[in-house]
Amino acid sequence: MEKIRRNERMSVLMKILSGTPGKMFTLNQFCELFGAAKSTVSEDLDALRKVARDFDLGEIETVTGAAGGVLFRPRKSRESARAYIEELCRQLSGTERVLPGNFLYYSDILSNPEIVNRMGEILATEFGGEPLDFVLTMETKGIPVAFATANALGVPLVIARHSSKVYEGSAVNINYVSGSGNIETMSLSRRAVREKQRALIVDDFLRGGGTARGMVELMREFSVSVIGMAFVMATVTPEKKRISGEKSLMTLEVRNGEIPEATVRPAAWLCE
Amino acid sequence: MEKIRRNERMSVLMKILSGTPGKMFTLNQFCELFGAAKSTVSEDLDALRKVARDFDLGEIETVTGAAGGVLFRPRKSRESARAYIEELCRQLSGTERVLPGNFLYYSDILSNPEIVNRMGEILATEFGGEPLDFVLTMETKGIPVAFATANALGVPLVIARHSSKVYEGSAVNINYVSGSGNIETMSLSRRAVREKQRALIVDDFLRGGGTARGMVELMREFSVSVIGMAFVMATVTPEKKRISGEKSLMTLEVRNGEIPEATVRPAAWLCE
Repeated sequence: MEKIRRNERMSVLMKILSGTPGKMFTLNQFCELFGAAKSTVSEDLDALRKVARDFDLGEIETVTGAAGGVLFRPRKSRESARAYIEELCRQLSGTERVLPGNFLYYSDILSNPEIVNRMGEILATEFGGEPLDFVLTMETKGIPVAFATANALGVPLVIARHSSKVYEGSAVNINYVSGSGNIETMSLSRRAVREKQRALIVDDFLRGGGTARGMVELMREFSVSVIGMAFVMATVTPEKKRISGEKSLMTLEVRNGEIPEATVRPAAWLCE
Repeated sequence: MEKIRRNERMSVLMKILSGTPGKMFTLNQFCELFGAAKSTVSEDLDALRKVARDFDLGEIETVTGAAGGVLFRPRKSRESARAYIEELCRQLSGTERVLPGNFLYYSDILSNPEIVNRMGEILATEFGGEPLDFVLTMETKGIPVAFATANALGVPLVIARHSSKVYEGSAVNINYVSGSGNIETMSLSRRAVREKQRALIVDDFLRGGGTARGMVELMREFSVSVIGMAFVMATVTPEKKRISGEKSLMTLEVRNGEIPEATVRPAAWLCE
């Protein structure tokens, strides 16, 4: 192979690091890949660290020591996060997406990879500051955004189900009161998590907080700590939810009238 | 801003392009971002195209004309795809993951972002050759891999549900015969797809093909063409499925005995 230039090495490093966020690579892996000296790869990474910051792409972190290496963390500045969510709010507001019962149709948004990856990066920026073992969601609509958040954080996704399935093995079931006031079941395979782990809850929608509360209780059954709760959309009413400390990206208010109209706004913490 | 070097521009281009696969960017967007001439950005992209190929990272495509621009397509060589799936098969084979009823526990694999993204890239390489409007999956377990495939292809994901939900609006329901022989319902919001679109079906598991057959029939109701079907895992028996032309990444065989044992192999097409 001909000699590899710095601009080529840096491009490859950027692709590999940003392609698997949170994954630690050793300098040796890159030295072998490029047939280059450690000092050369170190200099590449220094230059890359600077450019990632300058262009608001994320952080390239170096961990020193025997188990050390280098990894990428997607980070969005608060300013760009707010601008992105504001634009999304404009798309979701109005009369066209309001369904009977004052529900909002936004399933298309929730499974659009580009949008969902961006949301995942914003949530990972917000919750990536402390150690975390997995992202938990409850089927179905929140799975893509929970997956994107787990991807941006470099941790596995764990999916709670409505009932235990034969292909999940033995499971822990709990009952919870859903938004509609029904008693429902939430189930998680025993193999899915381990005691003392730390979870971030991510879901698509927060109204009363019944499902979220259920997820917190499910984690208690597994002796797992919940370090945060994040939602794509939270309704303005009821103001008092069954959980607290959560962060949503957007708030939803539907004004009744001859033609009901939705107002979707960026959450307050994004505007701080 | 100080003058931006070629190695910096190329790194940023690689991050932006590979971060949103299949999305078209104009040269002007990059000229503005860098304050650079079109000829400069063109040269950067030429160099990047070469390095992306040399390191098996993907293809950087240039589309000429008024609506033209540049985009990134993740591509994995057949060789690296097979090596990756072979390693996964080793992890899944054996006695430890076999559940009562000869099911295999692999939910952890199906929601591990790094693994699932890799599967998505392999499937996108295989099915990305023809025009495609969306990826379709049926809830729940296949959603992450279907999302990752949609992401790698740069198209939306569409999720069929077991029943229609109030927050999805009016829906089309069909009945189908599931693997266990029950009549089940599959539902999709009318707003989710449009007539004459082209779909790729992606799901986690194929046994008899009942659910897949249901998805094909659902698409017929919407006058959507199914251009391909992909699965993470297919059972060796029954050999005859209710669908044909599908591609799976792995095949599963469980040998009964005092301690049942699973043999997971890469699919034949990966070994061609």
